Amino acid sequence: MPEMDLPGSAAVGLSRRLYLSFKQRILSGELSQGDVLPSTRELAKALGVSRNTVCAAYDMLWTEGYILNHPGAPSRVAPDLTLTPRDRSPTPQALPQPVLCPWDFHTGQPDLSLFPWSLWSHMLRDAAATLSVQAFAYGSPKGYEPLCVEIAHWLLRSRGMEVAPESVFITSGATQAFHLLVPMLHRPGCAFALEDPSHPGIRATVADRGFPLLWLPVDGQGADVSALHGQAVSAVYATPSHQFPLGGILSATRRTALVRMATEQNFYILEDDYDSEYRYIGAPVTPMHALAPERVIYVGTFSKTLFPALRIGFAILPEALRERWLHDRMYADVQNPVLEQAALAAFLRTRGVDRHLRTMRRTYSEKRKALLSALYTAFGEEALALGDASGLHMTLHFPGKHFGAPFAQACREAGVRIDSVSVYAARPQDYAGYLLLGYGHLTPAQIYDGIAALRICVATAALAE
Amino acid sequence: MPEMDLPGSAAVGLSRRLYLSFKQRILSGELSQGDVLPSTRELAKALGVSRNTVCAAYDMLWTEGYILNHPGAPSRVAPDLTLTPRDRSPTPQALPQPVLCPWDFHTGQPDLSLFPWSLWSHMLRDAAATLSVQAFAYGSPKGYEPLCVEIAHWLLRSRGMEVAPESVFITSGATQAFHLLVPMLHRPGCAFALEDPSHPGIRATVADRGFPLLWLPVDGQGADVSALHGQAVSAVYATPSHQFPLGGILSATRRTALVRMATEQNFYILEDDYDSEYRYIGAPVTPMHALAPERVIYVGTFSKTLFPALRIGFAILPEALRERWLHDRMYADVQNPVLEQAALAAFLRTRGVDRHLRTMRRTYSEKRKALLSALYTAFGEEALALGDASGLHMTLHFPGKHFGAPFAQACREAGVRIDSVSVYAARPQDYAGYLLLGYGHLTPAQIYDGIAALRICVATAALAE
Repeated sequence: MPEMDLPGSAAVGLSRRLYLSFKQRILSGELSQGDVLPSTRELAKALGVSRNTVCAAYDMLWTEGYILNHPGAPSRVAPDLTLTPRDRSPTPQALPQPVLCPWDFHTGQPDLSLFPWSLWSHMLRDAAATLSVQAFAYGSPKGYEPLCVEIAHWLLRSRGMEVAPESVFITSGATQAFHLLVPMLHRPGCAFALEDPSHPGIRATVADRGFPLLWLPVDGQGADVSALHGQAVSAVYATPSHQFPLGGILSATRRTALVRMATEQNFYILEDDYDSEYRYIGAPVTPMHALAPERVIYVGTFSKTLFPALRIGFAILPEALRERWLHDRMYADVQNPVLEQAALAAFLRTRGVDRHLRTMRRTYSEKRKALLSALYTAFGEEALALGDASGLHMTLHFPGKHFGAPFAQACREAGVRIDSVSVYAARPQDYAGYLLLGYGHLTPAQIYDGIAALRICVATAALAE
Repeated sequence: MPEMDLPGSAAVGLSRRLYLSFKQRILSGELSQGDVLPSTRELAKALGVSRNTVCAAYDMLWTEGYILNHPGAPSRVAPDLTLTPRDRSPTPQALPQPVLCPWDFHTGQPDLSLFPWSLWSHMLRDAAATLSVQAFAYGSPKGYEPLCVEIAHWLLRSRGMEVAPESVFITSGATQAFHLLVPMLHRPGCAFALEDPSHPGIRATVADRGFPLLWLPVDGQGADVSALHGQAVSAVYATPSHQFPLGGILSATRRTALVRMATEQNFYILEDDYDSEYRYIGAPVTPMHALAPERVIYVGTFSKTLFPALRIGFAILPEALRERWLHDRMYADVQNPVLEQAALAAFLRTRGVDRHLRTMRRTYSEKRKALLSALYTAFGEEALALGDASGLHMTLHFPGKHFGAPFAQACREAGVRIDSVSVYAARPQDYAGYLLLGYGHLTPAQIYDGIAALRICVATAALAE
């Protein structure tokens, strides 16, 4: 009996190590078809282990077909098992580490420090204690029904939207809604119309599928929908309450024109209402959905109002799409986890969401004022703030400026993270003088200091050009 | 001033109801372009409400572009806003209710009554208390890194699999892994090879994309991989540890042949290890993954071991696929919620999963014995139990029988829910005499009574034919 080098770490039992050793020798060709294995008694003695250990290893080899057993005959290696030695894969590289950015104006980050974490923990505990055991089995791909009901109530009291709980479909964030809807709405030969500029997520979702894109230019009234005339369109993606990133509100004239075209040209409108809860002057803008509930798919999310890692959003679906949605969600990932859905239903029912939003509206409004004041101090009339007084970001226009490589370099060196709007645009050159500032996650002090740092970057870049 | 019928329920504020009333009249054409609105003072007086209420309503109309304001002039309706009246959508139908089924042998349902719920609540509370606030912002699409590490450790101690945490990618259940992998692995003109019979989920995932299918017949040794010779293949989906639904283990000869073909013909192998934790005789079957980690994508889930509504699974990805995966997951739904990931990491670290699995293995083994005994009592030699002593389901073969419409009718009437294997098969006629019994969620008493009910259904159907 040759010496056996048993592979595997100590965490693996002796039987398994023995099994692995034989398997390696069989696969490498060291032991080949018909070779006789030592009897369990012999091997146990040779290795100084119990016979049960060896029997268990042989049993594993036999179960998986590496060896053949015949009553009264020794175990033999099964036929046709040799693999050519495979190349070991190179050591995986470490994932890239985020760069240190003391002044981070990246968008889409709510302020999580003011979220009522202990109240939320209480909601989770309550949900865990009161849900039936059966609720933790597979549920409906539509979502946890009490949450659908609470979202319908909340949409009415927060935005005046009247929707039936039957039309509310829970998603894993707004991202998943678009991921499911884009292939669902695609019609061969037809384009998806997106605002230019717009969020890169929806662009990637359409482009990854290989579907054609049609760009709608954006001005102070939102997207110019007249570009849709005579076009073959699968769907129009729009942010009517707060255009991302330029901040305008889609005018009523364009809303009605868009709905009229959707009916006449037979396409759907994807209404992305990503942050209309945060409007600092006047009431929230009313969603387009009410104009044509059978043509408009309204998509909302709790990522900005509560926190992103909750992964709960929703789509308000016309009846014609519901059956297909249930099928597609079933084979995408079945459903959201039930616990957070139940906790969120209770958080809405007890008006915890409403109270949190009131607090945050005040807080973000203060931050926005700090940002405007810091910008005026730093840039005076040189920079114009665009868009409605709402949301967690602001777009700045520096007329005549062009933020190119020297500016990017200056920001990297100063630790300022900021995007030019050109990153979001189909024609980047049109937006080379526009910057995008996310400020929701920053304190007023960070905003002042960050804008001062930004001013230096702008000045440095101007000198370098 | 005509009388105003203010729409909307009492949950909507008075300003919003006033705004909605004007909006409806504008959209319906009752008020049209250039029409003058009453002054805020007049209207407040007429309605007996405060002037602020009216101002707020006008402000909403103006913000959204329904009316035009010019200093010193009355508010007027903006141009081009009339919509033709839309048809009200019919009242949505109630979702279909599940039929009452006292004897439910549907597969894929673990026994949730024995899960340590209070320990799990404790894990959730701990996770909520110890995670940093930043952990609730957007995270990596790869998954919560401490969970990836714990899964790598757990795969080693439970199955002898050696994988690096870098290769572990968290998913929202195994379903999502296949949803992401199928388009990722697709090559034009190449088929996805599936076992026949197999789970309908993977079939729908491939067919929904319009990708071609190639069927591998299954026998007692698992899938017959020789059918792959000379075929253009994108990927092979297989359940080597416990074929679904027939229950066999893919033999070592076929495993090595499959890996050899994957290398030579340049395709990937999708290894679905959906329930190998539950093996009642001998050690768990070793996954194929170790044979060729660069060719085999191993997919696991906690839906069967813990509970389905947790929605956590994972894929072990070869390096070549990782970058594409991160992109695709980012635009599918970004990530899993962080809370359950952190709780599961702690549950694995403290060996709670291992203890629960030991308990369940004993429990399910008892249930399996009860099922075998009930089947012998009911059917004697008439029915053969197929497959390995593992998992949460069993396939029965009734040689010479054909379970058709009369049997389905008898089951409906008796309240027995059971699938024929033909539902899962590409050639249903080959499996008309095979039944599939999920028993993990049933008590031994339910199993005995259910099999007695099944016996009556089989006998009734035989009489009707």
